[in-house]
Amino acid sequence: MAGPSYMDPKSTTYQPLSEPSGKWPAAKVTLPIPMGETAARTARDIEEARTKTAFDPSKIEEVIRDARIDNESRKRVMGTLSTDDVFGTWKKRMVHMNREQQMQMSHFACRRLLELAEKHDWTTHEVIEAAITLDLQSPVTIHWVAFVPVIFGQGSNEQIERWGNRAMNHEILGCYMQTELGHGTNVQGLETTATYDDASDSFILHSPTLTSTKWWAGGLGRTATHGVVQAQLIIHGKRYGPHLFFTPLRSLEDGSVLPGIVAGDIGPKTYAAFGGLDNGWARFDHFKIPRDNMLNRHAQVKKGGEYVKPPNDKLSYGGMIFIRSQMIDRTGWMLSRGITIALRYCLVRRQFRDPSSTDITDVERSVLSYPSTSRRLVPLLAKSYAYILAGRRMRTLYEDMAAKLESGDTELLYDVHVASSSLKAYCTKQALDGIEECRQALGGHGFSGYAGFTTLFPEQAPAVTYEGDNIVLASQVGRAMLKISGELDKDAKTPVANTSAFLRAIATPNAVPFQSPQSPQDWYRPEVYSAALALRAAQLVTDLRAEIAEGRKFGDLSFECIEVAKSHAEFVVDLWFSEAIKDDAEALGNAECGWLRKLVTLHALTALSRNMTPLVLPASGQGRNLAGYRNGQAVVAPESVVHLEKAIRDLVAEILPQSIGLSDAFGWLDWELGSSLGRKDGRVYEQLMADAESNPLNHDSPGPGIDNVGRYPYGSEKTGKHVVEWYKTEIGPLLRAAAKRSEDGGIRGDGSKL
Amino acid sequence: MAGPSYMDPKSTTYQPLSEPSGKWPAAKVTLPIPMGETAARTARDIEEARTKTAFDPSKIEEVIRDARIDNESRKRVMGTLSTDDVFGTWKKRMVHMNREQQMQMSHFACRRLLELAEKHDWTTHEVIEAAITLDLQSPVTIHWVAFVPVIFGQGSNEQIERWGNRAMNHEILGCYMQTELGHGTNVQGLETTATYDDASDSFILHSPTLTSTKWWAGGLGRTATHGVVQAQLIIHGKRYGPHLFFTPLRSLEDGSVLPGIVAGDIGPKTYAAFGGLDNGWARFDHFKIPRDNMLNRHAQVKKGGEYVKPPNDKLSYGGMIFIRSQMIDRTGWMLSRGITIALRYCLVRRQFRDPSSTDITDVERSVLSYPSTSRRLVPLLAKSYAYILAGRRMRTLYEDMAAKLESGDTELLYDVHVASSSLKAYCTKQALDGIEECRQALGGHGFSGYAGFTTLFPEQAPAVTYEGDNIVLASQVGRAMLKISGELDKDAKTPVANTSAFLRAIATPNAVPFQSPQSPQDWYRPEVYSAALALRAAQLVTDLRAEIAEGRKFGDLSFECIEVAKSHAEFVVDLWFSEAIKDDAEALGNAECGWLRKLVTLHALTALSRNMTPLVLPASGQGRNLAGYRNGQAVVAPESVVHLEKAIRDLVAEILPQSIGLSDAFGWLDWELGSSLGRKDGRVYEQLMADAESNPLNHDSPGPGIDNVGRYPYGSEKTGKHVVEWYKTEIGPLLRAAAKRSEDGGIRGDGSKL
Repeated sequence: MAGPSYMDPKSTTYQPLSEPSGKWPAAKVTLPIPMGETAARTARDIEEARTKTAFDPSKIEEVIRDARIDNESRKRVMGTLSTDDVFGTWKKRMVHMNREQQMQMSHFACRRLLELAEKHDWTTHEVIEAAITLDLQSPVTIHWVAFVPVIFGQGSNEQIERWGNRAMNHEILGCYMQTELGHGTNVQGLETTATYDDASDSFILHSPTLTSTKWWAGGLGRTATHGVVQAQLIIHGKRYGPHLFFTPLRSLEDGSVLPGIVAGDIGPKTYAAFGGLDNGWARFDHFKIPRDNMLNRHAQVKKGGEYVKPPNDKLSYGGMIFIRSQMIDRTGWMLSRGITIALRYCLVRRQFRDPSSTDITDVERSVLSYPSTSRRLVPLLAKSYAYILAGRRMRTLYEDMAAKLESGDTELLYDVHVASSSLKAYCTKQALDGIEECRQALGGHGFSGYAGFTTLFPEQAPAVTYEGDNIVLASQVGRAMLKISGELDKDAKTPVANTSAFLRAIATPNAVPFQSPQSPQDWYRPEVYSAALALRAAQLVTDLRAEIAEGRKFGDLSFECIEVAKSHAEFVVDLWFSEAIKDDAEALGNAECGWLRKLVTLHALTALSRNMTPLVLPASGQGRNLAGYRNGQAVVAPESVVHLEKAIRDLVAEILPQSIGLSDAFGWLDWELGSSLGRKDGRVYEQLMADAESNPLNHDSPGPGIDNVGRYPYGSEKTGKHVVEWYKTEIGPLLRAAAKRSEDGGIRGDGSKL
Repeated sequence: MAGPSYMDPKSTTYQPLSEPSGKWPAAKVTLPIPMGETAARTARDIEEARTKTAFDPSKIEEVIRDARIDNESRKRVMGTLSTDDVFGTWKKRMVHMNREQQMQMSHFACRRLLELAEKHDWTTHEVIEAAITLDLQSPVTIHWVAFVPVIFGQGSNEQIERWGNRAMNHEILGCYMQTELGHGTNVQGLETTATYDDASDSFILHSPTLTSTKWWAGGLGRTATHGVVQAQLIIHGKRYGPHLFFTPLRSLEDGSVLPGIVAGDIGPKTYAAFGGLDNGWARFDHFKIPRDNMLNRHAQVKKGGEYVKPPNDKLSYGGMIFIRSQMIDRTGWMLSRGITIALRYCLVRRQFRDPSSTDITDVERSVLSYPSTSRRLVPLLAKSYAYILAGRRMRTLYEDMAAKLESGDTELLYDVHVASSSLKAYCTKQALDGIEECRQALGGHGFSGYAGFTTLFPEQAPAVTYEGDNIVLASQVGRAMLKISGELDKDAKTPVANTSAFLRAIATPNAVPFQSPQSPQDWYRPEVYSAALALRAAQLVTDLRAEIAEGRKFGDLSFECIEVAKSHAEFVVDLWFSEAIKDDAEALGNAECGWLRKLVTLHALTALSRNMTPLVLPASGQGRNLAGYRNGQAVVAPESVVHLEKAIRDLVAEILPQSIGLSDAFGWLDWELGSSLGRKDGRVYEQLMADAESNPLNHDSPGPGIDNVGRYPYGSEKTGKHVVEWYKTEIGPLLRAAAKRSEDGGIRGDGSKL
């Protein structure tokens, strides 16, 4: 496609905005509209912004995109998908479908994805990345992320032999059935039972009450042929708690639910999220499964009903921690989509001339140039990188922990559990809020489906609840902080993980040395901002301990734990964010590292700015002083707060010219972003107009069948001429009835002479 | 319907959950499932909670629902709608439709609404309230709220004669076309032109560039027959700025767009919002309209082109301020929907026994009993009431101002402008965030479409941008604070409105007397919390002035203005919230007033808690001290902060038992809330199960045509037996292809013996 050199404000013919895709013509503006200066300059503006980039974005991209698959694989896979007949236009079409249509499409898409995978010999990880980038939430993707890992993680070698390969090969499609209508977070309270039956040497799965109905399992509603069920193990009248059981659900032959089971889809999700996924409900009516269907890598039941407990009852935690540890960088990537769109659009969008201008032909200011915009967006850029890179550290730490756990060594388990809980709770919520902040920064056009947030926010939304409700996780972090600080009380030399080392500041003076900054520049020093994060986290734990000392029960401190956990997470993210950059310094390069370190600084300073109260409040005794702080002494002096705001302001201004380059470095393809406002080339107005012209609602339907839903007939000669069918059935009659009521019998003619 | 007395945990047959509606049977659980204790007790729990209500919710309801229509009218209208063939099941069905279907339905619904209005002789206001409660965003509702008021407000008497009644009577359907592709907030930058043509004594409407295309106007896309266009007035080469012009758009006869105009729908909105509304784009190609189509109540153009400016150039502000002043209580009502659902569900939802319990049959704790829940939700209840009641005050103030303006008296204009800008910016954002907070408090089931948030959040989302972008409004508030405090600098006795009176504290010692609280109870005194709100707002303005004194330009202070405006709004909301209760004290009753005043207190204390830094930071000179505060002296002492948190905690605990009654007092019908989780009777699990059983995705389609979309066949014998058609076309082939690939030729049989 031609670059900005052709963009003549007087032109009334437009260059294509995309390649043709299957039956779809290339997108472009068709009506003969003079482009005008405002639309013409957007591409020049973003090109000029890129000339200021003082580093090589592709170096950063290569490093951060080297994750579960490397960047070259990623580009290869995305290249195939973006030019595919079905997937090239996937995101645009799905928005035009109702749920039934989306479900049908997502099943079809999974089949096609697997065909492509076979044709191009993609690895499992490449298939998963493809599904994630497509926002393809479907029974088959759930099979991959929620069912297969459980077989391999919780099944014995023999069970993996029986089921694992067949699952990998899609001979069966599975789902993971844990949550029930009445119980989610409290797994111990699940009501589904698996009762051992001596006579048949089997387990009887049963759903005894309304609230025991399995609920929410993705793929369960209409699709899965098999499943893993979490149920209360009962042997000879004794309860052993929740265990996992492999069960058939539907006939491979015709998809009908097996006798003794009833199941279905639980209904639409909020904000039209996950339309293509059949989250399901199911009930068991004394349904028999063989005894050796109980997943028995850890716990087992022998013939006759003898229960063999797992060598270490914490071994099964591994799966839960695994999932949480995988979520952290994902939330960073989701936020990075939002911030990429926001930075590009706010750069090219101009509104209001400088107040000192008197010439109405002066160009209006770029929205990104307003501090209210940059001060809100650039920190979100820092957060995106923070969660991506801290998330890499998290996954490495998990792998170290899991390796030790294999040989029964639980040394790292507790720390990884606490860190993953803390970061899961914190990052999912920050990313969700950040995504909406990005969308709101887009102003009016941010409300368009073409802004690219239609699935981004709704699909991030449940992350604050699943895999551990964030509020419950925050309490667990609070509890851990009390436990570890209690150990330090007994022996100040107790070894503690880096992620909790700030707790030493509670009882040991100068354990975290800190001088209140005397200037904005002081705040840029890691020994200052990281120490401030540490001391804030320590102060909040001190306050928590004081509440308990004053007689409050821990169970009543769940609100206080929210802030304790946030400050803990901000400390850990800061720590890991900078460590991750050091790890990759060679691959990144000097200039690249330099700018990323500025993002580390900005992330830390804005995290502090979020809540300065614990640091600026002078100590006032009653067990709330950090060690070494006298009554009346605050950690941070009032002048330092003013310096902090200036430090942030100046740093944002310094990073701002690099922000386009830094978001380019995420490497998102336009096709992946699915956003007219986030086009890399900045041609936002042309894209909005092309889509508005060719919006299916403005054209006759090309025909029945799902293949024709959501088709954009770019270049049609009929643009602007279509009248909707229901004009005749609804609007016409409404107007004529009104004319009848009118005192003078109504308007004559076509109404153009009123 | 029978009440909770029948709810036998052992029962396997269920009572209806609703009345039949047209062709729909009554909702109920059909499968023979033992109810169980968890599901049975929800209705008992909420009934018991209501016995604790220490006031009469209906008294509050009567007062707060006496707004644009009175409560009796409202109940009459809602009663008709909730039992109507179409509207009784409206909200449930819309979620199952794609956009084309929703658009068709919303046109049909408007026609039906008007038929019902005629049949039952509803007033205009009753029709508007009906549309709002249905979340019926359609071309006809936009006609009422965005087109008709402009004709009546900006048209001369003669123009009102020509168009006003025909508009009221629906002989024409209008839209309001202001925003363009390239300009929204900067109205002066609009590019559409209206050029006077002497020869024909007409105006030529023209869209000269791509970015001049009119964009976003509701109803424009596919429906409106006429419109009011904001365009740059040009006479004999001279520009006079944006003015309003009445124009035909479509033929009344067949709905085709008139020659010289091209128009269409702009595409889907984010989060599937406003599916039934055709926000549109349009372009004019030298389209002629008569000279007397320029709305000329204020400005006029005479034959020959003489421009007559309006007597007061601020007169046209009235319309903009009107719309903002109407929005405040509406945001409160939207938030009140969310909090009603959240309080009811969190009460009946139980998860985890008390940690001290050792008996697994002990009942689990109500989620609402966790401080992390109540501490977050009860303040949102206070905010709902605050915005509803402060919004009433806002509307009264607007009416006073408008009455004076009629006779040319602009005395109140400035204050109402500032207050409406401040509250619009603040309340819309607080409500939006609050709605999501309510949904997240629902845990896992909050992600279901049946939670009732599917349209609530998405349709509140654009409010932070339309009718004045919130960030821009915040800057306007900041500018006003500088202006007024500057006047006070010159003469400390300058009269200022109540809403800005806190500014006196900047320069006059003890203008706002305040003693730092010595106990939690101290914080409950209005002279303490209102003074703290005042002093915080004054401190933030002081900081803003200091930034300017240090040389920063106002145009670079847009970020700082955000917090200035928030603290201003919180001061004003507190002021008006308590005044509104005094105004209605007689009608409300003692007990009712007592509990509402506690909500006033809670609203103020949580507003303070949101940002205590300006109050706890000791003064440090350099022009940032409030009058009378020495260096090192903070407004609020550190102990007071601890007391504040305890004060909030204790107040939340005190109000909590009344929170069900207080949310009942909003008077929302279950049908209006459209939420399975927010049922007044608490029967949440039965409703979720009934809907999951009868979810259309789980049943054969009842037939073609839009009448059959989204139908729930409650009581069907086929529940749980349906296999989706695409199982044959997509899943079956996927599994068979996998079997072929398998090393052993695949699984034999139906897979139930794996």
